[in-house]
This record gives sequence, structure tokens and C-alpha cells, in this order.
Amino acid sequence: MHMNKQSLPFDLIAFDADDTLWHNETLYTMTQERFKRLLAPYHDGEIVDQELYETEMRNLAHYGYGIKAFTLSMIETAIELTDGRIGGVEIRQIINFAHEMLRAPVRLMEGIEEVLATLSVDYRLMVITKGDLIDQETKIASSGLAGYFDLVEIVSNKRPETYAALLTKHQAPAERFLMIGNSLPSDILPVLAIGGRSVYIPYPSTWAHEIIDEETVSHEPYIKLEDVRQLPELLAGQHWPESD
Amino acid sequence: MHMNKQSLPFDLIAFDADDTLWHNETLYTMTQERFKRLLAPYHDGEIVDQELYETEMRNLAHYGYGIKAFTLSMIETAIELTDGRIGGVEIRQIINFAHEMLRAPVRLMEGIEEVLATLSVDYRLMVITKGDLIDQETKIASSGLAGYFDLVEIVSNKRPETYAALLTKHQAPAERFLMIGNSLPSDILPVLAIGGRSVYIPYPSTWAHEIIDEETVSHEPYIKLEDVRQLPELLAGQHWPESD
Repeated sequence: MHMNKQSLPFDLIAFDADDTLWHNETLYTMTQERFKRLLAPYHDGEIVDQELYETEMRNLAHYGYGIKAFTLSMIETAIELTDGRIGGVEIRQIINFAHEMLRAPVRLMEGIEEVLATLSVDYRLMVITKGDLIDQETKIASSGLAGYFDLVEIVSNKRPETYAALLTKHQAPAERFLMIGNSLPSDILPVLAIGGRSVYIPYPSTWAHEIIDEETVSHEPYIKLEDVRQLPELLAGQHWPESD
Repeated sequence: MHMNKQSLPFDLIAFDADDTLWHNETLYTMTQERFKRLLAPYHDGEIVDQELYETEMRNLAHYGYGIKAFTLSMIETAIELTDGRIGGVEIRQIINFAHEMLRAPVRLMEGIEEVLATLSVDYRLMVITKGDLIDQETKIASSGLAGYFDLVEIVSNKRPETYAALLTKHQAPAERFLMIGNSLPSDILPVLAIGGRSVYIPYPSTWAHEIIDEETVSHEPYIKLEDVRQLPELLAGQHWPESD
């Protein structure tokens, strides 16, 4: 159904990438399981998880997001947790984990291509993703989805001012902007804060850093969907909660 | 001197960042010296340099540029060159090199701030830099130069099509675009290839990957300056070699 542009509820629809367009967190979770097995001779998995998370949080401001940052934090954690007893051969295995992650094929979310094909008929579509520049560019290129997007922006954080700056740059008014993603703190709340709209589609597993208790934000006017395939119908219906 | 915009030779002037706005290569060179001292019990410095460069080139396509990529390549090289005999304590030192690089203060090129202050009166200024997203954002933010730039673009490569896409995105015609930088293959030749102009300001040391023999490109219509402080005078003179 090709709609009259005048009647469309949005000028610009942006998608988060990791765990919205394609599976990502599972790759990190699988790698972390392998990391725990590697360190099993030294420590319980629970201790390893906890120490790795603390290392990642300590490094986040200067490492940023992505596979290289994760790998350096794994190496640092392994050395810490073994008081330096871990050897080059084991650290080589951690580096190999990184190479495998970087080479892993992109696994698209079920139905995403059809959704993008439908929406791209009427809407200007965009990717807004946090993360490592080359990781994200590589995934966008190999996903086969690049052609559906008019704009791609890879950013180092998703604060309200980041979204505001992107909307200014692309001359899109916030009240005509919709963001879709799986992270309440990164994709949903900052967009509502600047007067945009957002659709929250949770992913089965989420990195602890991106978790907010849904209860605490249940009064916020975002829409929650179970599956991205529900999106075209939602957009056709146009029953949007009031912003602010 | 505030010139009539009509008489200005360019609509948009872009600067490379590393070793054009601020010193960068020296930080890598210093770190590589420390890395060689760390591996001195195992190998000659020359072997270490060569193996590290090969590792970096092998990893470039999936690691990209920047401190995290350099660090992972140093760790990988150290393990290779010692057949895994290197220990966690030594690898911890390599990680510490990375933390020190990431925390190193930005050392501006001599006179750059005055040059930007002068040019920003008449021109729209931009940064186009290759590298790690968070490394480059951090340096731009802490450089104190951000206010002089209308646009900042951090890219994963500087091929002709990268420049062409940026100029389209920012609606700047190539023949009214000037790029300034220290790398012939990244800042100069690709810009000439799309019909833009460029000013080459060599830096005393250059990463082997960015080196092209100047002789082989001496027929190309770029202008070479010894010092960025000569730039305002050059622009005021407007004697530009013909493009193509």
C-alpha cells in the first residue's frame, strides 16, 4: 500500500542495528562461554563474568563498544584473574575468539528484510548504531540490507544530544522521527527525551550495561512490540501515544 | 581580512586530523620502541618491527585503524615471535601501553589554532579522519579545536568514493573542495581523483602503510607546503594548479 506522504506519521524512521536488524548479543554470549571455559582451571564462571563486566565498564569510556574493546577486556581480565600466570598460548586463544567473531556471518533478524522492503516504499529509513566503526560498517555491508537505508550513522553513544544533533544534521523534526530498537536506555528513552517517538522490541538477551527495569519506565509513551514483523501494521494504524 | 564569499576559491576546506591537526605518529613510534624493548630478550628490533607491520597489514581489513587495533596486533606479534612463551605479566605491559596512549594529551601542531581561527572567518571547515571512532572523537573533543569545524566525519577508509559520498552528503561540489593532509595516498590522490584540490603537508615521520614515493606522483596537481602556517597566505593568493 503506497500512502500519500502527507498522511504518513513520520518523515524518518531509524533502526538500531545490533539485536534489532541482526543477532549480535548471542555472539558475545557464546564467546564469553568459551572464555569462561578457558579460565575454568583458575576460577568459577561467575567470578569470571563479574570481573569481565567490571573491566568492560572501567574501559568503556576510552575503549568504546565493539569486538576489539571486548577482546582487550577479556585479555586484561584473564591476566588479572590469574595474577599474570596465564600464558601466551591461552591469550592467543582469546585473540582467536576475536578473529572468529569478526568473521562470523551476519544473522538477520527473522522477517527484517521484508519489513524494510515494505517500509522503504513510503519512508526514509536510517540506521543509528553505537559501536566500533569498522565492525558496524562491515556488518552493514555484508547484511545485504544497506540498499534499504538512506542514511547510516555510527555513533559512540546514544545520549539525547546525540539524537538531537543527528536530527539537526539531517533536517528531520523530532516529532516526525521514529526510532526502533532493543535497548531502553539507548534507543527508547533518549529519543522520547527530545520529543521523538520510539518502538521497543526486546531481544531475548541483553548486555547488563543496556538493562533498565521496564517497570521504572512503564509510564513513558513508547510502544512495545514482540516482533519487528508487527511494525508495518503498527505504522499503518497510526495510533501513537502522545509525546511528553 | 574578510573576503567577499564570491571571490573565495573554495566552499569547503577539510583537514585530516592525525599528524595534520595534532601529533600522532610519534605516539605510535614511541610505543613501538617500548614494545621492542619488551621483546628484546627474544628478538632483534628489526625483526619485531617487520613482524608487527605484517600483523597490522593482515589485520587491517577487519581491525581497522587506531589504538585498539595496534594493541591487539602487538599482543599477537609478541605471542608469535615467542612461540607463546611470553607471559601474562609482559602482555599486561602491552595493555598498559594502550592505556597510556589513550590517555596521552593531544599535542597540537604548531600554529594550527591560529590558522583555523583565520580560515574559519571565511570558510566552512571540516575534519575528515580515518581511524577508530572513539579515539578520534576523544581527540577532537580534548583538542580544543572542535569549535572551528562545521563538520566532522570519521571514516574507515579514504578512497575516492568515500570523499565523493561525503561531498554529496554535504552538498559541496568537488571543484570547490580543498583537502589538507599529510598522507599522499589518503588525503591527496583520492581527492584529486574526484576533481577536488589538495594541499600536502608532510609530517616528519609517516607510517609505512601511508607512504608513496613522491617522485611517482610529482606530476599530480597538488600543492606542497612545509608548514600549515603558510596556508592562509596560499589561500589568499589563489594561484591553483588546474585540476585534471
